Amino acid sequence: MRSVGRKSISASATPRALMEEKVLANVWTARVLTLYPEMFPGPLGQSLTGRALKDGLWQLALTNIREHGLGKHRAVDDTPTGGGAGMVLRPDVLDAAIRAAPVTGPLLYLSPRGQRFDQAMARELAAGPGVTLLCGRFEGVDERVIEAHGIIEVSLGDFVLTGGEIPAMALIDATVRLLPNVLGNAASTEEESFSHGLLEHPQYTRPNDWEGRKVPDILLSGHHAAIEAWRREQAEEITRARRPDLWADYQARKDAKG
Amino acid sequence: MRSVGRKSISASATPRALMEEKVLANVWTARVLTLYPEMFPGPLGQSLTGRALKDGLWQLALTNIREHGLGKHRAVDDTPTGGGAGMVLRPDVLDAAIRAAPVTGPLLYLSPRGQRFDQAMARELAAGPGVTLLCGRFEGVDERVIEAHGIIEVSLGDFVLTGGEIPAMALIDATVRLLPNVLGNAASTEEESFSHGLLEHPQYTRPNDWEGRKVPDILLSGHHAAIEAWRREQAEEITRARRPDLWADYQARKDAKG
Repeated sequence: MRSVGRKSISASATPRALMEEKVLANVWTARVLTLYPEMFPGPLGQSLTGRALKDGLWQLALTNIREHGLGKHRAVDDTPTGGGAGMVLRPDVLDAAIRAAPVTGPLLYLSPRGQRFDQAMARELAAGPGVTLLCGRFEGVDERVIEAHGIIEVSLGDFVLTGGEIPAMALIDATVRLLPNVLGNAASTEEESFSHGLLEHPQYTRPNDWEGRKVPDILLSGHHAAIEAWRREQAEEITRARRPDLWADYQARKDAKG
Repeated sequence: MRSVGRKSISASATPRALMEEKVLANVWTARVLTLYPEMFPGPLGQSLTGRALKDGLWQLALTNIREHGLGKHRAVDDTPTGGGAGMVLRPDVLDAAIRAAPVTGPLLYLSPRGQRFDQAMARELAAGPGVTLLCGRFEGVDERVIEAHGIIEVSLGDFVLTGGEIPAMALIDATVRLLPNVLGNAASTEEESFSHGLLEHPQYTRPNDWEGRKVPDILLSGHHAAIEAWRREQAEEITRARRPDLWADYQARKDAKG
């Protein structure tokens, strides 16, 4: 277990280090239970999320599941009961890993069986104290530990990954950027995709004429209201064409408002 | 630009190094265009995908967009034409980055506006020569470069991230694990989620009795056919309860088969 950020402690597997983990109260915390703690912070340690981590706007706490493995070889998994390919993470090992550290916020397990992660869930998590993420590997985790701890299964989408670490990073990235002071320009989170339930309008920048391809005239007009109207139209058109599901929700909300 | 894997070349920004990039033919290639090449391989360099990378079962080629930036400061972005928060990646800079390296497979841009990445797309990409992934940052990329290069927008889900790098990793991970010889146990890809259009059944392993929570008797029966039937029932029940959309598709296919 180690924490990364303002008061980072170097990685160590000794019980002494375990006892000394410093996780600050009142700082948004992502706790990750994983067999690959060395993957973190990884991409989260750079760019916006990395700067915010160094500035203490959030903190990362890692629990190495392997440290709770059984026997000399610290076994964490076993074959699926009833047969089948792959290996399943043992309930007793995961239970020990969960109990070893305080669970911050909801305890989520990244799994294709879960409810879809979306911007609303990111906002909800950003408004709370943090999140605890269990990253599976192999064929998954023993069902009983999900029941015993009331773990919520969350999915990034209808695809299978080698483990939960990359989706955990995606979930943390989407949430951390919504925390106060993380984005330099607060307006960004307001204007972007999904804030109005629509996909984002096309964006343009310099040069105005790029190899004969010109920026739409309206964007150079200086008429703020007309530009806003054009962008809204574009966003509606793209949403209607690409995402009938979002478009139906958007229409329903508009009708409800009268 | 650098490549990572069997014949890796150390990172360098000199034109000479650019000319010398060694990308092997006949090896599945993920080319990533990014402002943060140092994020790669990151989590992809470990576990299954990392071992496969070292074994030359796939290769990673990186194009640093910054190297194609303009002027002394290698500017890559500018303010949105027509106003608004954030910065937009310039079309001329992205065009130069795309032209600097051979595009392997389809050229995809990771964006919440895109079509959903799913297991079918992972299978399709795994069957081809590779994929080229453009990772955005800030408010996105100039629409004209998407049009000019026929770039396909692909989305991981309805949420906003600080950049395309983490979803690129997810897409690569999901695809690489389907390449020949990457998973030790080939049966795994057959039995898992989405192969039958159903969510996966619950998994159990030892101990059979964990703190009073017992593995379902059927799984200890040794009756292979009965176990298969139970698992299918469970998968159907979970899919029906959690994902009415997948369930409807599954029913439609079953009806079509007669």
